[in-house]
Amino acid sequence: MTQINPETLTAALVRCASVTPDEGGALILLQDLLEDAGFICTRVDRGGVSNLFARWGDKGHPRTFGFNGHTDVVPLGDPADWTMPPFGAKVKDGFLYGRGATDMKSGVAAFAAAAVDFVRQTPPDGSIILTITGDEEGDAVDGTVALLDWMDKADEAMSVCLVGEPTCPDHMGQMMKIGRRGSLNAHVTVKGVQGHSAYPHRAINPLHALVRLMDRLASHELDTGTDHFDASTLAVVTIDTGNPATNVIPAEARATLNIRFNDAHSGASLSEWLREEAAKADAEFGTTTDLTIKISGESFLTPPGPLSDLVARAVEAETGTVPEASTTGGTSDARFVKNHCPVVEFGLVGRTMHQVDERVEVAQIHQLKRIYTRMLQDYFA
Amino acid sequence: MTQINPETLTAALVRCASVTPDEGGALILLQDLLEDAGFICTRVDRGGVSNLFARWGDKGHPRTFGFNGHTDVVPLGDPADWTMPPFGAKVKDGFLYGRGATDMKSGVAAFAAAAVDFVRQTPPDGSIILTITGDEEGDAVDGTVALLDWMDKADEAMSVCLVGEPTCPDHMGQMMKIGRRGSLNAHVTVKGVQGHSAYPHRAINPLHALVRLMDRLASHELDTGTDHFDASTLAVVTIDTGNPATNVIPAEARATLNIRFNDAHSGASLSEWLREEAAKADAEFGTTTDLTIKISGESFLTPPGPLSDLVARAVEAETGTVPEASTTGGTSDARFVKNHCPVVEFGLVGRTMHQVDERVEVAQIHQLKRIYTRMLQDYFA
Repeated sequence: MTQINPETLTAALVRCASVTPDEGGALILLQDLLEDAGFICTRVDRGGVSNLFARWGDKGHPRTFGFNGHTDVVPLGDPADWTMPPFGAKVKDGFLYGRGATDMKSGVAAFAAAAVDFVRQTPPDGSIILTITGDEEGDAVDGTVALLDWMDKADEAMSVCLVGEPTCPDHMGQMMKIGRRGSLNAHVTVKGVQGHSAYPHRAINPLHALVRLMDRLASHELDTGTDHFDASTLAVVTIDTGNPATNVIPAEARATLNIRFNDAHSGASLSEWLREEAAKADAEFGTTTDLTIKISGESFLTPPGPLSDLVARAVEAETGTVPEASTTGGTSDARFVKNHCPVVEFGLVGRTMHQVDERVEVAQIHQLKRIYTRMLQDYFA
Repeated sequence: MTQINPETLTAALVRCASVTPDEGGALILLQDLLEDAGFICTRVDRGGVSNLFARWGDKGHPRTFGFNGHTDVVPLGDPADWTMPPFGAKVKDGFLYGRGATDMKSGVAAFAAAAVDFVRQTPPDGSIILTITGDEEGDAVDGTVALLDWMDKADEAMSVCLVGEPTCPDHMGQMMKIGRRGSLNAHVTVKGVQGHSAYPHRAINPLHALVRLMDRLASHELDTGTDHFDASTLAVVTIDTGNPATNVIPAEARATLNIRFNDAHSGASLSEWLREEAAKADAEFGTTTDLTIKISGESFLTPPGPLSDLVARAVEAETGTVPEASTTGGTSDARFVKNHCPVVEFGLVGRTMHQVDERVEVAQIHQLKRIYTRMLQDYFA
């Protein structure tokens, strides 16, 4: 039986100009491929975003292996900076070039190819679900979330899920992700009373309150790390006033800080802490501090167990490397999937993602398909 | 003998459009008046600025009373905002309107009128020197400083000096100035190492060092005041970073602070303190802090004594009020004169100085001439 070549499939996907939120033909191409192999496909479009749900096997089967990924890509930056056509999928010196080559059309191609070949060659006693979204790089409100919402209503469920994002920092097999720290941005505005710098007692200097508050927040040890997480961190990323006059105490000053937090905290507990500290500074200085807090994501963890063991076995068998079970890095759609079922992320080396001349080592695409195939074999064995 | 009308003289000076550094005819007008009364006049122009030195009596006389003032004025702002012609010297409801009406053409007119009438009516055993500059409102580097430099070379000297700037906050006679706090601006640039806010341990956040440093500086009590001075103050006036990305730790952050300091400090001692504190923060955070310090003026004091007593007697005799001997307020040319001889500032109410529709109460011009006349009578008695 003919096998699906994941390199050819990656190239076909790269040629679809699916800059988020454009579908660009990528999901249509995948739907054709999957339906040919007996997958039941449903387009779950929402808010102008295209998403594809595909299931092989019985609905509601207690052994349902899921894959999740996205076909949308980030913008090109300045197209003139590219040395290779960004939607050309040209191969040079063993690398396939194009926007999305690593993030993550190769990952989608690898798991789609693995799933199609697997159900054709060794139809399992169980089901396989693919959830592929066109809105991971954008606002991510109508992408994987829409798919999961639709699945809940349709009584569709995955027992476990593998997200195919690039996870290896330097070499293939190095790392899988079993969770992620949460992220929170706080925009702080301190209001005082403007005045002349020669007469500070007649003014209330918002900067004096702000530096006290920021120093306290930045020097506070949130924790020293937990079982599977690094220590939480807080970074003041900007303070701005825009006062050009040295003889004027400004009326207002602004700061923004970012907290990356582990499972010792929640967005709510940190918001409460920030508000308490702001109130303390206000009481000391007579200022009024406004906080606008945006929780980008809560921390989450799929504790090491059957799923991460299965991923590790497949990776080690193909690469000789036992992948580290990490919780580092930025957000991915795993933060949504974790509300649905155990989730682990594993994919190739993502070093050029979001960059000009994004490219993937062709050998890694084939290797990734073999790893995903091993996962399916192991899961359904 | 005809007396000089200081109101008429003020009006004539206001009609000279002497927006700094333009002479506008003001010094020529004064030179004519003073030469008529037997003053020896010398134009001490430097760097495009016009200045007038005038002496009545013998050069080098051990009893030489000095007056200092300026005829240049600040710009109009938007001329359309004025309800009266800014160089018209119109009188309405007892007020004379125009740019420089209070700051300080009325002061110059009052002391010139007092001096001319005094030497004509009761020629003293001593000398009177008038130093009038066209560069007080500008950079002030070629104004009173040029006059004093020239006087040093020409062996001209004042025994004491009265600067005729407006000194009364609310009502006539309320306040004289016997000194002034110093002023210093420090521009602080903290350099760290840029990085991702998710991995602060790989970066050096300049803002964390900056807020610690600024909090320490702002919360440090410089002193609690000295015999004739209020407490020194420090105000952080701006902090700026300009980093729009919440996931980026910036490479650099900037702050500016202003210190108003009394005679417990000097520009040098404060600069040393700032550098020590910056070095301490750098050692703690691994940052590199650059300080650019600009000392606008050192603090100075003419301790209460014969000159301030003489001023107080004259003011009390005319107004019934004993003037407070203050060291508050912004800079004036007294900061240069103090290197030359004891100096006190006394003038009228300056409430509208630098404002649109600047105006002076006509009665105060006459009262001020009488006060200056009493000073001369008392000094040469």
